[in-house]
Amino acid sequence: MANMVKTAEELAKEFREISAAEFFEKNRHLLGYENTTKALITVVKELVDNSLDACNEAGILPDIDVVIKELGENRYKVSVEDNGPGIVPEKLALAFGKLLYGTKFHRLVQGRGTQGIGASGAILYSQLTTGKPAKIISSTGKAVHYLEFMINITKNEPQIISNKTEKNDDDWHGIKIELEIEGRYIEKGQSVVEYLKQTGIANPYAKISFHGPNGKVTFERVTKELPKQPKEIKPHPHGVEIGILRRMTSYTKARNVVGFLRSDFSRVGKKTAIEMSKLARIPQSKKPHDLTYDEIQRLHNTMQSFKLMAPPLNCLSPLGEKLLEEGLRKETEAEYVVATSRPPSVYRGNPFQVEVCLGYGGKLPPDQTAQLFRLANKVPLLYHQSDCALTEAATEVDWRRYGFSQSQGQLPAGALAVLIHFASVWVPYTSEGKQAIADYPEILKEVKLGLQDAGRKLAHYVRHQIRIKEAKERAGLFEKYIAEVSEALSKISDVPKERIKTKLEAMLKKGKVIEDAMKQMPEEEVEERGKENTSEAEA
Amino acid sequence: MANMVKTAEELAKEFREISAAEFFEKNRHLLGYENTTKALITVVKELVDNSLDACNEAGILPDIDVVIKELGENRYKVSVEDNGPGIVPEKLALAFGKLLYGTKFHRLVQGRGTQGIGASGAILYSQLTTGKPAKIISSTGKAVHYLEFMINITKNEPQIISNKTEKNDDDWHGIKIELEIEGRYIEKGQSVVEYLKQTGIANPYAKISFHGPNGKVTFERVTKELPKQPKEIKPHPHGVEIGILRRMTSYTKARNVVGFLRSDFSRVGKKTAIEMSKLARIPQSKKPHDLTYDEIQRLHNTMQSFKLMAPPLNCLSPLGEKLLEEGLRKETEAEYVVATSRPPSVYRGNPFQVEVCLGYGGKLPPDQTAQLFRLANKVPLLYHQSDCALTEAATEVDWRRYGFSQSQGQLPAGALAVLIHFASVWVPYTSEGKQAIADYPEILKEVKLGLQDAGRKLAHYVRHQIRIKEAKERAGLFEKYIAEVSEALSKISDVPKERIKTKLEAMLKKGKVIEDAMKQMPEEEVEERGKENTSEAEA
Repeated sequence: MANMVKTAEELAKEFREISAAEFFEKNRHLLGYENTTKALITVVKELVDNSLDACNEAGILPDIDVVIKELGENRYKVSVEDNGPGIVPEKLALAFGKLLYGTKFHRLVQGRGTQGIGASGAILYSQLTTGKPAKIISSTGKAVHYLEFMINITKNEPQIISNKTEKNDDDWHGIKIELEIEGRYIEKGQSVVEYLKQTGIANPYAKISFHGPNGKVTFERVTKELPKQPKEIKPHPHGVEIGILRRMTSYTKARNVVGFLRSDFSRVGKKTAIEMSKLARIPQSKKPHDLTYDEIQRLHNTMQSFKLMAPPLNCLSPLGEKLLEEGLRKETEAEYVVATSRPPSVYRGNPFQVEVCLGYGGKLPPDQTAQLFRLANKVPLLYHQSDCALTEAATEVDWRRYGFSQSQGQLPAGALAVLIHFASVWVPYTSEGKQAIADYPEILKEVKLGLQDAGRKLAHYVRHQIRIKEAKERAGLFEKYIAEVSEALSKISDVPKERIKTKLEAMLKKGKVIEDAMKQMPEEEVEERGKENTSEAEA
Repeated sequence: MANMVKTAEELAKEFREISAAEFFEKNRHLLGYENTTKALITVVKELVDNSLDACNEAGILPDIDVVIKELGENRYKVSVEDNGPGIVPEKLALAFGKLLYGTKFHRLVQGRGTQGIGASGAILYSQLTTGKPAKIISSTGKAVHYLEFMINITKNEPQIISNKTEKNDDDWHGIKIELEIEGRYIEKGQSVVEYLKQTGIANPYAKISFHGPNGKVTFERVTKELPKQPKEIKPHPHGVEIGILRRMTSYTKARNVVGFLRSDFSRVGKKTAIEMSKLARIPQSKKPHDLTYDEIQRLHNTMQSFKLMAPPLNCLSPLGEKLLEEGLRKETEAEYVVATSRPPSVYRGNPFQVEVCLGYGGKLPPDQTAQLFRLANKVPLLYHQSDCALTEAATEVDWRRYGFSQSQGQLPAGALAVLIHFASVWVPYTSEGKQAIADYPEILKEVKLGLQDAGRKLAHYVRHQIRIKEAKERAGLFEKYIAEVSEALSKISDVPKERIKTKLEAMLKKGKVIEDAMKQMPEEEVEERGKENTSEAEA
């Protein structure tokens, strides 16, 4: 053996548990804190997402104030205040001072944050780069609580520095968080302003005020209608892993297999449950706890191949085609927008839905790669575009079919903007920084189908535009030779030349030629619509 | 308030702690398990990385057996056996049955795995997709231990199913892990075979046998020399965050600030420590525990700007230029290879070193985008190429300077292969699946400098090749007209035509023209070398 080597006994002494706070402090880039520009955006994003989630769950129209103040070189104070329900004082420090602690991880419900590390991660980054404690003010409508704390990294626990309670004279409720961080503020491209603008578009019922180093801007709410709160649901049998199924059989309160299937899964009624247990050759009255490994495996196989209804729509909160179209038009000033919503689908038992909107022409530059806007559960994704399933799907679609040029493996080129919204009870982000979606095959397929749907609708318009343009060119050409044509026709028909010329010119003025071209639209539309259900992505 | 809303009190009831096992089970894609093909490779990778690390630390020449057996559709048994030091029985179940538990996270030492979730993550995936327990055999040279267990997900703890000990008749030591998983086996492109081949190249002292569904292949060791075990070090003051510094002051055993700086950081001697505390206006004898926030902040500022030696080389284990060149030649059959090693540098207090090797010509296709090989601490990275700092650096270098064509934001095109090795005491992977490196600005800069170094060396060869080619073309042209030239010269000089022709032909045969072209090389090299220290990346 060589020098400086270690025996198994020596190595054994090195084993130690790693706390979640230690892990993410050392891996701060996993949370989106690898550089100062991104760090500032990420802090704002995590706090605003939290505020929107809290307001949504409490049924409150969100009113969010974001303030960024420059304190020195690369040093900023960020504060985010909302009018949400607040957090009860007993849970306040834990909610923000412990990583992997939250309200949504164990439920299947659509939300912006679900991992329990968004806001606590921002606080971790603040204390890592400035050594300063986090300041939180919270009220549930009763007293107002002022809390100052740091995270004990080794223990992954809040360590309270000061804590006081005051009277709440004006019935205020909500949370205000104030953090000092190392950051860099920019206003172009990927920036706080861009993030807030896109957030406003995807959440039109929210009012977001931003007071930055260069002044104030407010994104007003354009509707007072809160979207329906998505319902919490049970997993769909399709795609549930056997490991999860096995655990579910040991934790369930159901007394027999049929009851278990009915109560612990969505889209399984009594008839289906009985049918499933029959196919899996399991007695209907058998206790879930008593199932053998082989029985669980048979049940799992049965569940996967059993034809079931798609998950219910009410567990998801999509944006809707109208909002998608308005949003994309606002963002890009496209001349034409078209949106499409896929029916809900399932990956790993998790329902999800894909919405797509395409924008064309207008102020979109005609000779560049298409602009891609990605949203997940109404949160704009600004980073890691190249490593995202939404991007991958967009590059895998053959856009030449829809009239765009495209290099292999690239986004299409042309006056095109592509917006994709992925809504799910569980978004599989590629890292805890939540900037890109993992490429599960089921997700890739659905996004491609959505893009193809929208692509076909858009192609129809694009082709039509080309047809009008060509008709106009023909008309122009015709106009040029109108004198010669009139003379020739006059010779053949004996009608005076001038009369023919006047008639022809009138025809052109009425735009008959162009109208004719436009008349071709409806039939074509019917034909195109008919093709929509043939799913190219499955080929 | 709308329907179905929740009050702060109701929301408070939903708060729950999330165990690391729960977190990664639900986020299995973070560990590289989002599809069956990648999952099979990831399982092999995690187990082989573990084996190589164990052998390295114990100073043992690694002998690793990988077996993949197809059990059914998408169902495989994977086993990996090594001849490492084994794990003592008391730690065996925890080492593999608890996530965020390991030997290297809390030390600054170069290793393949450092997060404590590689092998336990593979076991988690196995049990999730097949519901089967993990089987482990281990011996430290004494008795042989057989262990069967599953991970209790809620508790993030091993749950032992069977455990027995037998006599070790043949003094075997090492670990064998057997897992049943859902997977898909392929042999082309990103595959187990490609991963093992590249691993063999980066670890030439390891013997790796692979018995797959289609037969057996062995990657023999080409050297019996183990690389020097890299030394564990203290953080370098540059880039250490104030949050870490603050914590270090409260945990240190040093009795005063000078002692603290000397004992807890690398590259800080007594003189430097005294100088630093002076600059930070801190009394040298002050206890680290008693430092105020302002003092810590001043100390932090001083540390960042203080001129210090680069971190010591012995904490890193680079591949070396010879191995890089041999490896890349073997992998690509390039005609010419050139390697370069950057001096060690620091990001966030973590020393790292970049090595680059470029291959040119030979069997490399001349009309495609350059092939990129990425390695981190001797582990080949197969996935997430587009989202990796190594790729980003390679696309940001202006390769047109070195004779290659390149589209904006793309890798260069031409008969080129690029190999980048990133060695560090802490590799900042973009996700726990360890397939890409985060783009910390210091890392990007160093990789670019390395690529530019190597690019200049290669450009010299490429230009030289072009010169030879041109010389050959000139010689060919000359040969064509040799009869005419001889006749003309004969007329001028009165020497017989035939004699001149023979002489000219002899000259050409000796390759005089080409030799002359080659002679131009040395001077140019001197000139080129002189330019190397001008760092373009800083511009």
